[in-house]
Amino acid sequence: MSYSLLVRNCGQLLTLAGGPADRPLSGPALADWQILENAFVACEGEKIVAVGPMAALDEARVTAATQTLDAAGGVVMPGLVECHTHLVFAGNRAHEFQRKLQGESYLDILAAGGGILSTVRATRAAPEAELLANALRHLHDFRRYGITTLEAKSGYGLDCDTELRLVRVAREAGRRQPVRVVPTFLGAHVVPPEYWGRAADYLDFLAADVLPALQGEAEFVDIFCEEGAFSAAEARRYLLRARALGFGLKIHAEQLHDLGGSAMAAELGAVSVDHCDYLNPTDAARVAAAGITVAVLLPLVPLFLRQEKYAPGRQLIDQGVPVAVSTDFNPGSCPSKNLWLALSMACLKMGFTPKEALAAVTLNAAWALNLAAEIGSVEVGKQADLLVLDVRDYQEIPYWLGENPVREVVIGGQRQNLSDH
Amino acid sequence: MSYSLLVRNCGQLLTLAGGPADRPLSGPALADWQILENAFVACEGEKIVAVGPMAALDEARVTAATQTLDAAGGVVMPGLVECHTHLVFAGNRAHEFQRKLQGESYLDILAAGGGILSTVRATRAAPEAELLANALRHLHDFRRYGITTLEAKSGYGLDCDTELRLVRVAREAGRRQPVRVVPTFLGAHVVPPEYWGRAADYLDFLAADVLPALQGEAEFVDIFCEEGAFSAAEARRYLLRARALGFGLKIHAEQLHDLGGSAMAAELGAVSVDHCDYLNPTDAARVAAAGITVAVLLPLVPLFLRQEKYAPGRQLIDQGVPVAVSTDFNPGSCPSKNLWLALSMACLKMGFTPKEALAAVTLNAAWALNLAAEIGSVEVGKQADLLVLDVRDYQEIPYWLGENPVREVVIGGQRQNLSDH
Ligand SMILES: [Zn+2]
Ligand SMILES: [Zn+2]
Repeated sequence: MSYSLLVRNCGQLLTLAGGPADRPLSGPALADWQILENAFVACEGEKIVAVGPMAALDEARVTAATQTLDAAGGVVMPGLVECHTHLVFAGNRAHEFQRKLQGESYLDILAAGGGILSTVRATRAAPEAELLANALRHLHDFRRYGITTLEAKSGYGLDCDTELRLVRVAREAGRRQPVRVVPTFLGAHVVPPEYWGRAADYLDFLAADVLPALQGEAEFVDIFCEEGAFSAAEARRYLLRARALGFGLKIHAEQLHDLGGSAMAAELGAVSVDHCDYLNPTDAARVAAAGITVAVLLPLVPLFLRQEKYAPGRQLIDQGVPVAVSTDFNPGSCPSKNLWLALSMACLKMGFTPKEALAAVTLNAAWALNLAAEIGSVEVGKQADLLVLDVRDYQEIPYWLGENPVREVVIGGQRQNLSDH
Repeated sequence: MSYSLLVRNCGQLLTLAGGPADRPLSGPALADWQILENAFVACEGEKIVAVGPMAALDEARVTAATQTLDAAGGVVMPGLVECHTHLVFAGNRAHEFQRKLQGESYLDILAAGGGILSTVRATRAAPEAELLANALRHLHDFRRYGITTLEAKSGYGLDCDTELRLVRVAREAGRRQPVRVVPTFLGAHVVPPEYWGRAADYLDFLAADVLPALQGEAEFVDIFCEEGAFSAAEARRYLLRARALGFGLKIHAEQLHDLGGSAMAAELGAVSVDHCDYLNPTDAARVAAAGITVAVLLPLVPLFLRQEKYAPGRQLIDQGVPVAVSTDFNPGSCPSKNLWLALSMACLKMGFTPKEALAAVTLNAAWALNLAAEIGSVEVGKQADLLVLDVRDYQEIPYWLGENPVREVVIGGQRQNLSDH
């Protein structure tokens, strides 16, 4: 049978293949995946059906029906997996940016009714069509950066109706364009004004009244474990209820303080523990021991918040913690969809090598979404999500700081048009 | 007469108008320029001929011959002026990136024959056509970021033939595409191996044998005043000779050490003093007193070099030093063409406000190239170099970290095609 799509003349094909099949890459394996030189990738429909050196290409299957994409010696790699975003919200917080620059703290701004609560107000008030249009606009930009799968959290509604709307918008956005959208329920983002002082009651309400309505709608349930949000004990109780309802688990933990949320969630079998800036070595060892829990590191957040403290990426890798890297795209602490910049910052600020950083935005990010069987590497049987880059060596990827190296994007075997607006 | 181009429905038109005509913006004036709401810009040929609120548009001059660009409520601003790049070189230094991440210092890598000398070797060996193709590729990327004028330094030849070739390539690159290219001669980048230990002899050679051949070819003469390169006394003698030959002056100074180069060059009438990370307050006052010398700050360099020390932008502004911001695009210390990222980092790491940062990449950058009479603001009589952005408020520009907000680029009244490869 003819190939439907052939990507030929891949100067370096970053397959991400060669690691264990049952768990994310960790330790030395994070940099020990296979690069093929002068290679091809062949697809039938939405799947990859052959990968190998150009010399091994079965020319008989390259027919008039085959669309050919000539990489012309450039790097070819799996589509980026963006495993932590707050995609759906109304408005932006650019007006707070200047106040932050002039020294107002996060807490000052919050006390003045700004911060996350201003986004909650705007999001609650926004028509569903506006939220969807915003999400689609951002997804369009993400796709130009080569993101082919994206996790989208709710969390700016903090009431039943709005939170359900945000999950619905994320799903609808996924249907309307080619980037695969994975919805996560983050109703437990902060305690809403209606429940101030009653965090446990709010979590009870979410678990009793909202979670059941989201079975089959959201893949994961996430909670922000932090001072001023939810304690590790509250998070544990809530995540156990979510797990009993069949949801996968995620947690925002150790962003600003070490509350022990990461190790707790890993021991509950969470797919990911996110931020980890203050994760201590003892708890890191507990995350590593869990084996399947990915630490999702978010280097653009401290950059944007003007903090010097970054997650100890090098140390986590050396301890055997599987790591991924993401933007944390959101209107408050990281208004950036540039995952390539995050990848460079993982190298510059967290001590990743280029190969480690590349695994962290592809295969391990897919593990953080429990999708590693389908995406995240260039292997026979996986979905044909591929990028052709404007560079000839993978080492150039983090090197060209803040630039977008993407020349072509293929999603599910379909070549994308990147010049549309 | 009909307008040839009309940009209408500018939600915010950042004119950059309102400052002094005879010197760059400094102090409070850096943020005190005019923004028009719901405005238009009209052009005839390559010039701006009318600017004002939409209500004042002379509809009689909008005819079938007028090309109309609808900003649809977006921000419109002058094209970016990139006033400090090392555009022309062969190869890249991505292979050193990983070594740097593993802790090898700049000096270790230099001692092993790497660093700038590896770029010099590659550049000397490269055919002129290859250097030109590289420069054109980079200019193409710069244009997509909305850069409409760009300064290009030589400095990777360090011998007469190669240095002349680099200036020639910069000029030819300027002729082959729409971005205006301003060539600067930086033969005095470092002492080449042929002259090791004889820095003064090398400068004598440049002044006697190379500078005369560049009159009318390069606008500016620049020198790297730094430990291991040239002393302030050597730089002074060389710049005086360059000035006597009619060149404008620039200097790389106070990047890693405080040698006094900035104040010295300002007192010689340099158009710019570049880097300034270690500029002390006393010398900053001398630069401010010069009145026309712009301190060009390069925040992506410490970011890429993993240094915590940034130029004291806030303090320089408060002292009345006119400031500009640039990438310093080059293969060693800043492989980035993303001037928008530099603008955000000027806010986050140097304390610029968004308005100050915008002036620093437009009008003041034009002053750093002695071109403020022609470009850098949206005013009647200036060249029609304009950007239409995908944001509705100027405060969003540094806020969307690392992203490229450019929707449309106009150079000399001509709308650019940004989707070509
Ligand atoms: Zn988050
Ligand atoms: Zn430079």
